[in-house]
Amino acid sequence: MSKRNQQILLINRPKGMPTEADFKWEEIPIPQPSEGEVLVKTLYLSVDPYMRGRMNDSKSYVAPFELNQPISGGVVGEVVESKAPGLEAGDIVVGMLDWKKYQTVSAHGVKKIDPTVAPITTALGVVGMPGLTAYFGLLDIGKPQPGETVVISGAAGAVGMVVGQIAKIKGCRVVGIAGSDAKIEYLVKQLGFDAAINYKTATDLRAALKEACPNGVDIYFDNVGGEVSDAVMTLINPHARIPLCGQIALYNMEKVAIGPRIQPLLLINKALIKGFIVSDYAERFEEGTRQLALWVKEGKLRYEETIVDGFENTIQAFLGLFSGENLGKQLVKVAEPSKR
Amino acid sequence: MSKRNQQILLINRPKGMPTEADFKWEEIPIPQPSEGEVLVKTLYLSVDPYMRGRMNDSKSYVAPFELNQPISGGVVGEVVESKAPGLEAGDIVVGMLDWKKYQTVSAHGVKKIDPTVAPITTALGVVGMPGLTAYFGLLDIGKPQPGETVVISGAAGAVGMVVGQIAKIKGCRVVGIAGSDAKIEYLVKQLGFDAAINYKTATDLRAALKEACPNGVDIYFDNVGGEVSDAVMTLINPHARIPLCGQIALYNMEKVAIGPRIQPLLLINKALIKGFIVSDYAERFEEGTRQLALWVKEGKLRYEETIVDGFENTIQAFLGLFSGENLGKQLVKVAEPSKR
Repeated sequence: MSKRNQQILLINRPKGMPTEADFKWEEIPIPQPSEGEVLVKTLYLSVDPYMRGRMNDSKSYVAPFELNQPISGGVVGEVVESKAPGLEAGDIVVGMLDWKKYQTVSAHGVKKIDPTVAPITTALGVVGMPGLTAYFGLLDIGKPQPGETVVISGAAGAVGMVVGQIAKIKGCRVVGIAGSDAKIEYLVKQLGFDAAINYKTATDLRAALKEACPNGVDIYFDNVGGEVSDAVMTLINPHARIPLCGQIALYNMEKVAIGPRIQPLLLINKALIKGFIVSDYAERFEEGTRQLALWVKEGKLRYEETIVDGFENTIQAFLGLFSGENLGKQLVKVAEPSKR
Repeated sequence: MSKRNQQILLINRPKGMPTEADFKWEEIPIPQPSEGEVLVKTLYLSVDPYMRGRMNDSKSYVAPFELNQPISGGVVGEVVESKAPGLEAGDIVVGMLDWKKYQTVSAHGVKKIDPTVAPITTALGVVGMPGLTAYFGLLDIGKPQPGETVVISGAAGAVGMVVGQIAKIKGCRVVGIAGSDAKIEYLVKQLGFDAAINYKTATDLRAALKEACPNGVDIYFDNVGGEVSDAVMTLINPHARIPLCGQIALYNMEKVAIGPRIQPLLLINKALIKGFIVSDYAERFEEGTRQLALWVKEGKLRYEETIVDGFENTIQAFLGLFSGENLGKQLVKVAEPSKR
């Protein structure tokens, strides 16, 4: 079996949408683990919208990617060789790792996952960072109460889908906003959303939202910002809560985006808006992971994955996020596990 | 002694700044209290910026004033006649009452105040609604920690002054923004603010703020909104908190104000912004009043009052709020107490 190693480097800071020319595939040797380390073979890697922000050389959620260094992100891998207690060859692990086929990492940098609880890919989605983002943003900032109306932008993404289903579990009316009729239909028919709106085809988004939210909006889980959010903001109720999870404007921070001032609406409605990142809740990841896995097991939390095959197709999968091709979590399959 | 009664009615919904022609002084009889009521003589009444919003026929913090009805607001008065247990003639009370020289009110609609604890006018200022607004907005939403930097717009107003002094008590660096050199000097020299900026004369407000806040802004207590806030927002630190207390844009809600989108800044900094109104904290007024009165007694909390004499000068006093004439709490003295 060939054990060639490969990594993907960022070689240019993209202007606007990245192209494959901004990245470089490089052959490298397979490293040897030192004491306390494991050698991990990448099985699946996660591509996420927030990574676009890290490709800029500007302040964002997290530090920018360095030029001529490998991209990093969520990876599920298999331990090939272990020099660390508690991990052995064949174990499946998840962590924030480099985009490499093989890499060594400190045993503290990965978490062992139990493949019998849920498919291993869910550690990158519904029970991983996107699921935890939904869980803490909705429950800790949104604080949903039975009978309240929850609106979600980017509702068919990996985070939005989980937000909507947790809101249903909590007894809320759930309205999703997404960008295709197929997504809209999926949200309502498969995930049980009360309504969903295609913002690309709605002639009057605010009117469509008003119809879908006859009692106004108590929680707006904002994954996108911009004009979609402008429409939702005009419909918020007194004491509304707005977890702020993503903003299109972040992808192009050279220009300051201009729009309607939201402070008067926040003041009149005594409303709260809070930006957050899932790592704010690192101390509660165990709780969140356990609850999400339980809901998946009970069939209360469905998930969707779009899997592209092959390390060489990673950038293509990443770019697909921005044209809205994925339904649910977008993953790249890099290798098969050696055993199941 | 003449006991003519008079009231001030709102007779037009003002466009822009009100004029005296929007109001009417009307002679009325002095009413008789029914069982459970008291007859109250107005001693001092409070004029506040938020009242401008209530003169519009649009959604604001609180319901609009009704046309051809008396304006209402904070009043300190003296009980002239009581048909309610627990209150007797000569008692000093505070409540949200009509702009009348005399009125009857349910005993539940007023609170008895102890004139020996602090001057009775402070029940409309530093230990009244403005003080409580500062107390709960700063402590409950802002959550100041020692060493943090707190910026306050409208810093020389009745709320802003108290915010700054509480922030100093909590060990913060305090930077005020106000609209005259006299106010700036008062904030720094009399109230112990670490720095203060005159936004009207600053050639580059952001640069001036940056110099005054070398460690960035952890809490921004926003009394004004608009371009002053735009400048502050660009300097917020990670996990900043922004209690939203007032917005100039509210006075002219027909037009949607346009400005820089703040959501990207909130997301990058995982920051919180929350609109509030003091009545959100009604259950904790006892706690707040007690603490504020204690700080006044200990000399830790200074206050300033601008008192206009005469019921007939009420509107003039109100309009002065918008040209920045007042330092601290603006009051109108309507009558002397009959005893001290």
